[in-house]
Amino acid sequence: MDTDSTGWTDIHGLFLILSVPIRVIRAIRVPKGFMIEIKWDERGLVPAIVQDAQSGAVLMLAYMNEEALRLTQETGEAHFWSRSRQELWHKGATSGNVQHVREIRVDCDADTILLKVDPAGPACHTGEYSCFYREVKRET
Amino acid sequence: MDTDSTGWTDIHGLFLILSVPIRVIRAIRVPKGFMIEIKWDERGLVPAIVQDAQSGAVLMLAYMNEEALRLTQETGEAHFWSRSRQELWHKGATSGNVQHVREIRVDCDADTILLKVDPAGPACHTGEYSCFYREVKRET
Repeated sequence: MDTDSTGWTDIHGLFLILSVPIRVIRAIRVPKGFMIEIKWDERGLVPAIVQDAQSGAVLMLAYMNEEALRLTQETGEAHFWSRSRQELWHKGATSGNVQHVREIRVDCDADTILLKVDPAGPACHTGEYSCFYREVKRET
Repeated sequence: MDTDSTGWTDIHGLFLILSVPIRVIRAIRVPKGFMIEIKWDERGLVPAIVQDAQSGAVLMLAYMNEEALRLTQETGEAHFWSRSRQELWHKGATSGNVQHVREIRVDCDADTILLKVDPAGPACHTGEYSCFYREVKRET
């Protein structure tokens, strides 16, 4: 590499040349608004584990699409994609049992989300605090 | 309903009549070995959340088929179905980081499993204790 009298300009130029394609690749690869590229499945969904931020109890598992994740981040309340109703689902919108999101984490493969929440009420439609209220036992 | 001199025999007979079809229906509906009918998806899988039984931390999410669940129950160590390798996966078989299962729970819809485990080592292939070692943040 040539150096001029300052010994600096050409290196600066090199950074300018490199920075343009890197920014373009980044804009293509990273979904808008997220630092980590989420690997949505063929339905455009990922499973989202919901955990009580205080007690650590696992409350439920639901599914998110990109819109649900964006709304969750923007509003601070958990949003999902209802596979049965095929529509966006603001958890607690009718029951009042919203989930205030304290933390959003993603796993190593970026194909599962973990929400740590403060729940305003039971997570389960049965009225149970957690959907995992039953233990699986073998028949004897 | 008629009652004889004891006032008891006919009720006993009624229970006998009812108990036969109930047992038959149960035998058909409940997969062999399980008290709760798991709703396997179209691939024969359900997501299984793995949680540290002591710390409460969510460690990973993997998938189980009926064989993986049976082996988990029989051996007391977590088994999954590897979707990428398309084979049964005894967690920790090569790394030694087995997960001793303390409790198996199922959600309200019976389409998600929760394993509470004592992990012998890191859950993540990256060497991290939990696969959820990254937080999702919005770009600003």
